[in-house]
Amino acid sequence: MSILVVGSVALDNIKTPCDFKKDVLGGSAVYFSAAASFFNRVNLVGVVGKDFPRKYITLLEDKNVGIKGLEINPKADTFRWEGEYKNDFADALTLATYLNAFAEFNPYVPKDYQNSQYLFLANIDPDLQQNVLKQMKRPKLIIADTMNFWITSKKNSLTKLITQIDILIINSMEAKLFTEEHNLLKAAQSILKMGPKILIIKKGENGAMLFSKSFMFSLPAFVLGKIVDPTGAGDSFAGGFVGYLSSVNKITPKALKQALVYGNIIASFAVEDFSPKKLFKITKSDIISRYKKYKNLISI
Amino acid sequence: MSILVVGSVALDNIKTPCDFKKDVLGGSAVYFSAAASFFNRVNLVGVVGKDFPRKYITLLEDKNVGIKGLEINPKADTFRWEGEYKNDFADALTLATYLNAFAEFNPYVPKDYQNSQYLFLANIDPDLQQNVLKQMKRPKLIIADTMNFWITSKKNSLTKLITQIDILIINSMEAKLFTEEHNLLKAAQSILKMGPKILIIKKGENGAMLFSKSFMFSLPAFVLGKIVDPTGAGDSFAGGFVGYLSSVNKITPKALKQALVYGNIIASFAVEDFSPKKLFKITKSDIISRYKKYKNLISI
Repeated sequence: MSILVVGSVALDNIKTPCDFKKDVLGGSAVYFSAAASFFNRVNLVGVVGKDFPRKYITLLEDKNVGIKGLEINPKADTFRWEGEYKNDFADALTLATYLNAFAEFNPYVPKDYQNSQYLFLANIDPDLQQNVLKQMKRPKLIIADTMNFWITSKKNSLTKLITQIDILIINSMEAKLFTEEHNLLKAAQSILKMGPKILIIKKGENGAMLFSKSFMFSLPAFVLGKIVDPTGAGDSFAGGFVGYLSSVNKITPKALKQALVYGNIIASFAVEDFSPKKLFKITKSDIISRYKKYKNLISI
Repeated sequence: MSILVVGSVALDNIKTPCDFKKDVLGGSAVYFSAAASFFNRVNLVGVVGKDFPRKYITLLEDKNVGIKGLEINPKADTFRWEGEYKNDFADALTLATYLNAFAEFNPYVPKDYQNSQYLFLANIDPDLQQNVLKQMKRPKLIIADTMNFWITSKKNSLTKLITQIDILIINSMEAKLFTEEHNLLKAAQSILKMGPKILIIKKGENGAMLFSKSFMFSLPAFVLGKIVDPTGAGDSFAGGFVGYLSSVNKITPKALKQALVYGNIIASFAVEDFSPKKLFKITKSDIISRYKKYKNLISI
């Protein structure tokens, strides 16, 4: 079952306590695609500018990512994000954001992609997410991500959007901000009442939780001795999650739980190097081997 | 197998966003005893003052907690702690501490207790924990807790103590402070090198991790819709953990993992009411029923 992702494609400058990387490949749609492509063909809709290196496009193509929907704006530069992480790698500090080509981005879904069965609306303006939805025939599963910025500045659009999706993926701070609840379970229940059938709450190094009206799961993260760059961990998580679901093409509680595991595992690889570099390096057998370790970590 | 706990017995004043409770039963040895007594007989060594209500002693006796080692200092008041929790119940803000009878406390282990097989050294001065150790015959398992205050002010004593124990239980902040490592796995490896065979890192609402040189486990917390008072959650966790281990009387990886689950579960009950009130109310069947729910939450 084909997957479509709509989101950002970026060039990132990333500073960590140990290193600094300039102009590395980034963006939510890129991390998601790299992660989901272990399980299925992914098609990407996004925009880059005239400065976007050809080698990054080749990298995506080699990963079996469809780039027919990747618009190249000849008049603008690529979206850029500059971020910094401190010693605990907990939160990214945004140093600068240059929207560039992304400022006028109005996603167009190529005809071939309009009947994709799995749609991931990565974190962009909820009005644009809505525009994408309108162009689609009937996807089997619609998953959306968002961020504190849209929760604060476009709450109405976001609230409308989530009545039309199946799964919302956000982090714990965003869930609390969105609902003004301090308790995560209460926040989750409040979001489920707004429409989505499933809510996933990402908790970074503390794993992830999945809530529905009739069941819930909580899983820890894979334990790592070294984190190199947490950028894109959430989108890689989403990629592993949606990728797995599309590969089994079932939305049962069991499949959702396995998908949550694969989300955790793929995210754990993503943070072990800058940019989605490691996701371009590992193979399915690395994922299977980490799955076994993860199972030993948590099975009771 | 009998359990011995040495720690504080206190009267607490606790302020939360919803309520305020005065002079409620508290202290690490009390929470631990109430939790561990679901699995085994627990004997307590501690001190209270002349103002300690008789009803609290009865409560402990009714719970099958041996209080022969509970010294009553007729010249002093009971140790008091005043704390406050904000909306997220994340960290306790200490408003005041009155050591009172605890100031001159030098734990004496009654002869009957000296050959206890399971010893829990709750969070007190590491020199006093050492004094307790000296009074013991050969316990099968020695478990100790500590806190940031001792890590900062008595690091040498603490470092010496942990060469003589089997299991250290601390929280993630303390593990990082103790080792000056930002990564939990590295912090854990560094502590294991200092002596203990097992390290447990408590992460509050994010569960707990167990590390040894050859295996590790990570388990999420039970998910609660309402937290009333998180005081004593860590000691209740330790009580569930040690209580379960003593009941199976095996220190295998499998038993340790189950003990971690019971620690999480008992702690989840402890925070649902003020003081260890809920631990005095629930029965073994409540624990079994929550165990099943917990298994559904995490089993893959």
